[in-house]
Amino acid sequence: MGSSSREIGIGMIGYAFMGAAHSQAWRNVARFFDVPLVPRLRAIGGRDPVKLSAAARRFGWESTETDWHRLIARDDVELVDICTPGSSHAEIAIAALRAGKHVLCEKPLANTVAEAETMADEADAAARHGVRAMVGFNYRRVPAIAFARQLIAAGKLGAIRHVRAVYLQDWIVDPDFPLVWRLRIEEAGSGAIGDIGAHIVDATQYLLGDHIAGVSALSQTFIKERPLPAHGAGGGLAATGTAAGRGSVTVDDAVVFLARFAGGALATFEATRFATGRKNALRIEINGEHGSLAFDLESLNELEYFDRTAASATQGFTRILVTEAEHPYIAAWWPPGHLIGYEHSFTHEVRDLLVAIAAGEDPAPSFRDGLQVQRVLDAVARSAAADARWTPIPADHVVAAQGENVR
Amino acid sequence: MGSSSREIGIGMIGYAFMGAAHSQAWRNVARFFDVPLVPRLRAIGGRDPVKLSAAARRFGWESTETDWHRLIARDDVELVDICTPGSSHAEIAIAALRAGKHVLCEKPLANTVAEAETMADEADAAARHGVRAMVGFNYRRVPAIAFARQLIAAGKLGAIRHVRAVYLQDWIVDPDFPLVWRLRIEEAGSGAIGDIGAHIVDATQYLLGDHIAGVSALSQTFIKERPLPAHGAGGGLAATGTAAGRGSVTVDDAVVFLARFAGGALATFEATRFATGRKNALRIEINGEHGSLAFDLESLNELEYFDRTAASATQGFTRILVTEAEHPYIAAWWPPGHLIGYEHSFTHEVRDLLVAIAAGEDPAPSFRDGLQVQRVLDAVARSAAADARWTPIPADHVVAAQGENVR
Amino acid sequence: MGSSSREIGIGMIGYAFMGAAHSQAWRNVARFFDVPLVPRLRAIGGRDPVKLSAAARRFGWESTETDWHRLIARDDVELVDICTPGSSHAEIAIAALRAGKHVLCEKPLANTVAEAETMADEADAAARHGVRAMVGFNYRRVPAIAFARQLIAAGKLGAIRHVRAVYLQDWIVDPDFPLVWRLRIEEAGSGAIGDIGAHIVDATQYLLGDHIAGVSALSQTFIKERPLPAHGAGGGLAATGTAAGRGSVTVDDAVVFLARFAGGALATFEATRFATGRKNALRIEINGEHGSLAFDLESLNELEYFDRTAASATQGFTRILVTEAEHPYIAAWWPPGHLIGYEHSFTHEVRDLLVAIAAGEDPAPSFRDGLQVQRVLDAVARSAAADARWTPIPADHVVAAQGENVR
Amino acid sequence: MGSSSREIGIGMIGYAFMGAAHSQAWRNVARFFDVPLVPRLRAIGGRDPVKLSAAARRFGWESTETDWHRLIARDDVELVDICTPGSSHAEIAIAALRAGKHVLCEKPLANTVAEAETMADEADAAARHGVRAMVGFNYRRVPAIAFARQLIAAGKLGAIRHVRAVYLQDWIVDPDFPLVWRLRIEEAGSGAIGDIGAHIVDATQYLLGDHIAGVSALSQTFIKERPLPAHGAGGGLAATGTAAGRGSVTVDDAVVFLARFAGGALATFEATRFATGRKNALRIEINGEHGSLAFDLESLNELEYFDRTAASATQGFTRILVTEAEHPYIAAWWPPGHLIGYEHSFTHEVRDLLVAIAAGEDPAPSFRDGLQVQRVLDAVARSAAADARWTPIPADHVVAAQGENVR
Repeated sequence: MGSSSREIGIGMIGYAFMGAAHSQAWRNVARFFDVPLVPRLRAIGGRDPVKLSAAARRFGWESTETDWHRLIARDDVELVDICTPGSSHAEIAIAALRAGKHVLCEKPLANTVAEAETMADEADAAARHGVRAMVGFNYRRVPAIAFARQLIAAGKLGAIRHVRAVYLQDWIVDPDFPLVWRLRIEEAGSGAIGDIGAHIVDATQYLLGDHIAGVSALSQTFIKERPLPAHGAGGGLAATGTAAGRGSVTVDDAVVFLARFAGGALATFEATRFATGRKNALRIEINGEHGSLAFDLESLNELEYFDRTAASATQGFTRILVTEAEHPYIAAWWPPGHLIGYEHSFTHEVRDLLVAIAAGEDPAPSFRDGLQVQRVLDAVARSAAADARWTPIPADHVVAAQGENVR
Repeated sequence: MGSSSREIGIGMIGYAFMGAAHSQAWRNVARFFDVPLVPRLRAIGGRDPVKLSAAARRFGWESTETDWHRLIARDDVELVDICTPGSSHAEIAIAALRAGKHVLCEKPLANTVAEAETMADEADAAARHGVRAMVGFNYRRVPAIAFARQLIAAGKLGAIRHVRAVYLQDWIVDPDFPLVWRLRIEEAGSGAIGDIGAHIVDATQYLLGDHIAGVSALSQTFIKERPLPAHGAGGGLAATGTAAGRGSVTVDDAVVFLARFAGGALATFEATRFATGRKNALRIEINGEHGSLAFDLESLNELEYFDRTAASATQGFTRILVTEAEHPYIAAWWPPGHLIGYEHSFTHEVRDLLVAIAAGEDPAPSFRDGLQVQRVLDAVARSAAADARWTPIPADHVVAAQGENVR
Repeated sequence: MGSSSREIGIGMIGYAFMGAAHSQAWRNVARFFDVPLVPRLRAIGGRDPVKLSAAARRFGWESTETDWHRLIARDDVELVDICTPGSSHAEIAIAALRAGKHVLCEKPLANTVAEAETMADEADAAARHGVRAMVGFNYRRVPAIAFARQLIAAGKLGAIRHVRAVYLQDWIVDPDFPLVWRLRIEEAGSGAIGDIGAHIVDATQYLLGDHIAGVSALSQTFIKERPLPAHGAGGGLAATGTAAGRGSVTVDDAVVFLARFAGGALATFEATRFATGRKNALRIEINGEHGSLAFDLESLNELEYFDRTAASATQGFTRILVTEAEHPYIAAWWPPGHLIGYEHSFTHEVRDLLVAIAAGEDPAPSFRDGLQVQRVLDAVARSAAADARWTPIPADHVVAAQGENVR
Repeated sequence: MGSSSREIGIGMIGYAFMGAAHSQAWRNVARFFDVPLVPRLRAIGGRDPVKLSAAARRFGWESTETDWHRLIARDDVELVDICTPGSSHAEIAIAALRAGKHVLCEKPLANTVAEAETMADEADAAARHGVRAMVGFNYRRVPAIAFARQLIAAGKLGAIRHVRAVYLQDWIVDPDFPLVWRLRIEEAGSGAIGDIGAHIVDATQYLLGDHIAGVSALSQTFIKERPLPAHGAGGGLAATGTAAGRGSVTVDDAVVFLARFAGGALATFEATRFATGRKNALRIEINGEHGSLAFDLESLNELEYFDRTAASATQGFTRILVTEAEHPYIAAWWPPGHLIGYEHSFTHEVRDLLVAIAAGEDPAPSFRDGLQVQRVLDAVARSAAADARWTPIPADHVVAAQGENVR
């Protein structure tokens, strides 16, 4: 937080789970990183004025706006951070970009490919005027994942043979868990596919520097009806009571799919909220001709690495505690062995975004990266609707990788 | 090994990896278990008389036969143990059954569904005369897996939602590993599908007491040509030198597939010999509405169990060391915490077979169980050959589960 | 951060590792917890005005004071947070308490028992006027440790038989690591004993609700001479270059000791900075007649629990992911399975301190708790200096446990 | 089991837990290893003729002897294997050696230092006539431990700084577990000290190639009275019912001690049968200037290795699955990743003994090694009886290490 740093005004829309996490990132980034732009938390947007005021006070925002158009229009807001459900991403993001505001948009980029295509086109157009857009796949900024990307990019694994990626949660195993917005297609767009499947699609494509060329999928809604949530209940991960009556679950509870990467790797994916006992197990294993990597978000400070080029008798999976100053992002934090948590990934995300804006470069993942993920998710949904039919994904886009070399 | 036990004469065909493991089981079973029939190692069969004599001496067989027909015909051989490559299973097994000899046949039961069907029919016919047949899916007899079956059968997991099963090895990652018999379709029938995929198909069907209703698969041969093995080299897991020249790998290096179980569980499977760093990682995870289980053959004395009905604050995956006297098979061995190894699964297998024979009951897994696995493998191969096309498996057979209650 | 909360002015002395961690706690506590007093970061104190200004800007303090007497004297400072080396704790803390300021003092409380005794007496005197004092054993506020305390206090382990506690680091294994202040007795008071040994003494006494009655110890300085640090180098965990010349290491590199708790538990302790490969491994195992617990700070979101009263066949160590809303402190943070990090323990610490001040209660651990730890450390040092002679510790004090029930 | 191998007649005394394990080793060693002498199980000795006959039949011994003097005297017995409680070791071993019979004696070598001294002297005398004596510290022959020794001997760890060794069991946590012979000083000599403490003393001295120079110890008997066992109950690890009445436990339930190795390493040791939930956790951690090792007998096929000389960013503890053909003893068994169990350590032990006898060399660990362990245990007991007084151990003996290079 050098004295010469310029401020940048932030406006954030949404104040639930993601709003809390992003606020923490904006407040803290300049306390730990030497950022060229120091965020100033100008305004928070949302519809319920009472809750919005409470959120502003709690999260540290200077003012509130109950109409997002007004938030975007404010002169003191230079960057718009979109933390709303996916159904509103496109409209808000496009408006913000056209207003000349940088955008950080939570994942998934949109609820449909068509929306995502428009958003990517708008982002390209905005970029020509120096306006930047980023989609919030925060797990790229977990140090262990960023470090895994460095190892793969450096050729440590050689040709990649296998990817197995799962994102396992269990928060709706109970049939009496209410029908929150994440279980309704109108707002969420999809269930496990878009919410957590999106993360493993992005993370594996990022790690391999490659894209998924085709998929074959099955999906399932195990519990087809649930109690309606109490009026005013949040839409998120925590149930806050139920109202009278029941409604239909209109999204998938779980999805599994096979994939081939363009470069030849064979992959299995699974995203589910019915993996009893797994709370937030985003696990990725990658096997290459020279080595392998394994990661689990429930142990997010660790990366397991097998080096087939090492002395044979002492080969094995090495549990790397990714807390050394030479690991990505870590020098800003604590001494070796002192863990960081979930929220730090957002701090790293906004740090990289601020650096890109100041440098006049496009951040990654871009909206076009988000679009490519959306195309994979769409292919997954179409395959699942057609008895696992093989569904190719056009490869018109190279996965970007800003952030690879961040420290 | 009570003084009143009757002897049963065993004849075994094949003396490579499986021959060594089975010999150990036959020699040791009566040292640890009170079996109603005490095996006597009458004859070992194979083609190379020099190697065969060495094997007989090393493994403890009383005599040798270089023609398997002669071995089957011997009066002192009451049970024929088939440890040859899959291509010869059907011919030998059928001949033995027709000769009134009990049969233990290594997995996979056969190289084709047609062969397996004939074998199952012959086994049914033989059973009507008290002649028993068993297929050697030895991992059912790993105590942790047998115990997992007990927990599921007792309803501890409730309705099963998810299965993820992988069998990961890496012994052919090196492109210079030679073209052994396991890499040639004529003898092996298939690659990873039949060799290790068969194990996870059988194990998951056994654990769930359910069968796979359909699959969607992809397979891959990463290294399409390899050096020819030196003349006389074994066909197994260890390379023993290469001759001049190269040949084509005619089986799959790896296969991945999605599946639905008849009861509704959604599943992913992977069998590969290209998972660098994983030596023998048969891993199974099962999520049910009331709990979950996780197993890894590289830690075969352990079972992880999550109980969603336990006190909520202390829920978590419990690492059960399956070495207590109350766990299946363990009372025969050592005190708690004293591990058993890979080979013990074969001792348990022949123990259960001897008990079934003495009781006049059909052992499990039966040839019909083996046929059902073969049908799944065949569907996997056909799906993989047709761009992951969804391929149903007819459900004409209920998975048996003798051995569930063994201790 | 309710609108009706009163502010409390904080003054912090010291701006190195602990200063950064405490600043983060003061800035963030009201963003996540409903605290009755909202901290305002009034002033940061230190000797070097240039570094101090940079720290104020970076850490978010409103002003600076280069003389700690002036910081204490300020009307807008109501609470003094002492993050200096142990040699200055007593003088500053006593002055602050006499000036009517609440005090948070980093551990160890002091460098000598005599100092600690005076501090405890002063804290008692101050408490009679509503002025509160707390010593900063932050690991009590790691949720897994606080939860472990709840389990033990609820009798889940029954009579405690064994404690094994180690704190393993390796940051001075390299003989060329320079002679920083933590390696010099004048400032640090001791080496591993006071720096990290203090933590495991406090944590185990807290967990058991019992105190150590006697010890037998050995200590060692493996590397007796080291390069002098460059002028102006920090004193902490990171070496920042070396000057010409070498100096003597005057503290212990490692200490091991046996102990008996008053309640009968038998214990082993080890604190070392020479455990190659262990970065921050504070590990505690406790065995009781009804169950056991195991914790490792390198996996700080986890607690392993063995329940001997559970169904015998499924007993084992359960890996509890201590990230549920019902676990201590967690409801303030993220959904289940979303990890927290090292720094959160400080946020919890200041949260509990603010609650205690507002409630007019003494916080825990009190200065008297800190004194008791100091007496154990002193006994350890005396035993180590006398060939492991058995050295009893007088039991004039019951371990307090505010914070046990916090959520 | 080459055709030209000479046979060697074995006589074993004792038929409980160790008798079963040793029988398995004698029966199997020539099935897997090319031993120069093929054991023939000539006679098993014990007092109860009924049980003895059953054991002979079960374990595969050709004949029985109810008087051990007669067993030793038999011409067809060339090697005497002593599996009795420690109180009878000296008398039997000395008689056997004087009769010109090789001896394998279970650990601990004896119940007193005086006995062990006599035994070591007798072994030295016998060796001058080609008669060999070995003490059965079987854990040296766990492949992971033998491999750890190779790494240390090759200098991979450099100077050793720290050793922490525990042997944790829980089989007498229940106060109603009966007063078996292992809990009575007359037969067992001591409690946890000699039974399991002996193993960690031997294993750490073997691993370091160094000896313990002094100790400071505490011990405890938590449960001072227990029910008497039913008449005829075994003395071992399994309770088989209780008779009327109670008796005093006359050995230690647990012992902890500090130690210094002659070479400067600082060590902590703990042996207990009250570590609830730990079944057979012999755990050893060793930290050296260049690297570290960690082992746990509950995962006996694994060794963790930290290499401080490796590339810094990918350093970490590597989990080596010690199942490769290049690891000690493994080539005789199964392919990589196929685990071995507890009993295999005994097979390796007798294999090495047979090799030494045939080569005319002294096996290791020798009786003199056993004596040195006994001296450490004696010092531990004396220190524990004297308030943890520092108790040096004379260093008149270099630890041998035959078996280091076995494969």
